[in-house]
Amino acid sequence: MNDTIDWLRGPAASPSAAAGREATDRQLQLTKPPGALGELEALAIRLAALQGTPKPAVERVHVTVFAADHGVATEQVSAFPQAVTVEMLRNFAHGGSAINVLARELGAILEVINLGTVNDPGPLEGVLDCRLGPGTENFTRAAAMSPEQRARATRTGRDAAERAFLAGVQLFIGGEMGIGNTTAAAALGCALLGLPPEHLAGPGAGLAPAGVAHKVEVIRRALLLHRPHLADPHEALRRLGGFEIAALTGSYLGCAQLGLPVLVDGFITSVAALAAARLCPGAAQWFIFAHRSAEPGHRLVLAAMGSQPLLDLGLRLGEGSGAAAAVPLLRLACALHRDMATFAEAGVSGKER
Amino acid sequence: MNDTIDWLRGPAASPSAAAGREATDRQLQLTKPPGALGELEALAIRLAALQGTPKPAVERVHVTVFAADHGVATEQVSAFPQAVTVEMLRNFAHGGSAINVLARELGAILEVINLGTVNDPGPLEGVLDCRLGPGTENFTRAAAMSPEQRARATRTGRDAAERAFLAGVQLFIGGEMGIGNTTAAAALGCALLGLPPEHLAGPGAGLAPAGVAHKVEVIRRALLLHRPHLADPHEALRRLGGFEIAALTGSYLGCAQLGLPVLVDGFITSVAALAAARLCPGAAQWFIFAHRSAEPGHRLVLAAMGSQPLLDLGLRLGEGSGAAAAVPLLRLACALHRDMATFAEAGVSGKER
Repeated sequence: MNDTIDWLRGPAASPSAAAGREATDRQLQLTKPPGALGELEALAIRLAALQGTPKPAVERVHVTVFAADHGVATEQVSAFPQAVTVEMLRNFAHGGSAINVLARELGAILEVINLGTVNDPGPLEGVLDCRLGPGTENFTRAAAMSPEQRARATRTGRDAAERAFLAGVQLFIGGEMGIGNTTAAAALGCALLGLPPEHLAGPGAGLAPAGVAHKVEVIRRALLLHRPHLADPHEALRRLGGFEIAALTGSYLGCAQLGLPVLVDGFITSVAALAAARLCPGAAQWFIFAHRSAEPGHRLVLAAMGSQPLLDLGLRLGEGSGAAAAVPLLRLACALHRDMATFAEAGVSGKER
Repeated sequence: MNDTIDWLRGPAASPSAAAGREATDRQLQLTKPPGALGELEALAIRLAALQGTPKPAVERVHVTVFAADHGVATEQVSAFPQAVTVEMLRNFAHGGSAINVLARELGAILEVINLGTVNDPGPLEGVLDCRLGPGTENFTRAAAMSPEQRARATRTGRDAAERAFLAGVQLFIGGEMGIGNTTAAAALGCALLGLPPEHLAGPGAGLAPAGVAHKVEVIRRALLLHRPHLADPHEALRRLGGFEIAALTGSYLGCAQLGLPVLVDGFITSVAALAAARLCPGAAQWFIFAHRSAEPGHRLVLAAMGSQPLLDLGLRLGEGSGAAAAVPLLRLACALHRDMATFAEAGVSGKER
C-alpha cells in the first residue's frame, strides 16, 4: 500500500513554456490571417507545450478501455441489464464495438482491461484480466471498494499509462464500459463538486425520466451514507467510484506525472479527470477535453475543469469513442502547424489595416 | 447563354428514402444504446440517403478552390492588400496553403481555379486559368458582373462539379480565396435574406471595429444602388457577388442536380449555398454544413438554411479548410455504420427499461 500511496503523491510533469512560445511564433508566420484557424491553432500550440517540441504530432495513439461492474446496478439504475458488461467485453474481443472500429480507422493501439465483472467471461483474446472482485459493492449500503481494491484499481490505470508512455505514444485515451457507471460517476462528481444529485444524474444509456428520478434518489441515499468521509477525494473515489473509474483516475494521474497528453472522452471519464485533478495539482494541464456529451451533467463537470471541448455532437456512448472521434482534429492541427508555408517562404503579403 | 439558363433551371436530384430507412434500421441494431452516437448516426443515415446506398462512404473527396478579385476591394474593406489573392494562388501552386496541407492529409483531390484576378499570375502548375476579367466591378458603382461573366462563372463551377461526379468522388467541397470576398458575400446575403448590412458584415480576415463599420456603409450604398433588382436571385448574384461566389453557386447547383453530396465550408460558401437554394428548390438537401465560422454573420446564414453545423472551432480561413477539417467525422461515421457488430451478431442484450 505504501508504494501506491507514494506514487499517487507524485507531482505532475511541467509542460514546456519554451516549446509553446516557439509554436505560437510559428502560427503567426503561417500563410493565413492570424487566428484564422481558431481552436486548431490553440491545439497545436498546446500540444507543442505538452510534448515539449515546437512541431508536435499525434500519429501514435494509445486507447485503454477499462471495464467493470457496479454493485449499485442492483438498484435498477440502468436501462440495460448488467450482463451487458461481459457481453460487451466479448464484443471488444471480437472487434465489433464502436471503439474497435474507431481504433482501427485511426491506427491506434487498443487494449481492454477487465477490472471486475459480475460474471467471469473466461479468457478473451485482447482483454487483460485484472479482476478485483465481482463488481463493486452497492454503495447505497457500503463503500464501493476496499482500500486495497481502490489502490489496485488506480495502480492498474497507472500501469496502462506507463505502458503507453514507454511505447512512445503521443496521446493517451481512456475509455470505460460498465453497466451502472453513470450512476457511480454522478455520485462521485456530486461529492467532488458539492452538488446535489439532480444536477449530475442523467439518462445514461437511455433511462426514461422516471428512471432518472429514481437514480437521483439512489445517489442521494449514497451521499447521505458516506457524507462524513467525502471531503477527502481518495475516500470519495473509494466509496462512490467504480473499479474502472478508479483505474481511469490512476491512468490520468500517471499520464500527468509522466508528461503524456490525455484526450478525455465523456461524462464518466471527465469525472475521473476531475478526481485526478483533485488528487494532484497540475494534473489538469495534461487533459484535453474531446467533446461535450449528451449526458446533461457533463457540462457542469467541464465547467468545473474550465474546459471548452472540441466537439459537441450529442455523443453518449463511452468506450473512449468521443475522444477517438476528435483525434483527426488533433492530427490536422499538427499537420497544418508543421506543413503550411510561412509568409516569408511563400512571398505572401501581411496585414495592412 | 440559353444553354446556361437551361442548366440552371434543372431540378435537384432526389435522395433515396429507401437507403435512408435501411441505414436507420441498421443504426438501431448496432451494439450501442440507440442514439448514443448522436450526430454521427444522423450523418451516416443522411449520407446513405444522398449516396443511395445503405452503407455510404466518403473515401474519395474532391476539393475545388475558386479564386478571384473584387472591385469593391478599392473601397478598403479588407485588412489585407489585394495582391494577396495572386500571392495565395502561387502558394496553392506550391502546396503551402492550409487547404493544400488538409487535402494531402485527407488524400483528397484538390484543384484551384482562377476566375479572375487583378494581376495576371502567369501560368501556375495546378491552377486552372479561367479568368473572366481583372476582378469584378466595384459594386458600389455598377453591377459586379456582366450577364456573360455571371453565366460563365456559374458554368465554370458546374463544370467542376461535373468533373468530380464523373471521377466518381463521394463528396464535393468548394473553397474560395479572394481579398474583399466577405464584403461581397455579406452584400449578397443581405439581398437574399432581406437583412441590413450590420447583421452580416464582420471582421473577415481581421478588420478592426472601425473597419467593420466602414464595410457596413459600403454594403449599405451597394444595396441602395441595386435595390430595384435584388428580388431576383440571379440578379442579386450578378450585381453583388464575385466570380468565385458565382462559381461556388454553380458548383453547388451542379452537385445537387447530379446527386453528389456537398460539404459546405464557412461564411462565403454558405452564402453561395443559400443562393443555390434560392435558384433551385431542393438543392439544399444535398448540402451538409461543416462548421460555424467565427465570422459573426455566418450563424444567420446557417439559421436561414435550417442547419446545425458539425464543428464550432472559431475557424475563419476559407479555402474550404473548415469543410476539410470535418471530413474525418464523415469518414468515422461511415466506418462505425459499416463495421460495428449488431446486437444479434455480438450476442449483446438490448434495453430492458
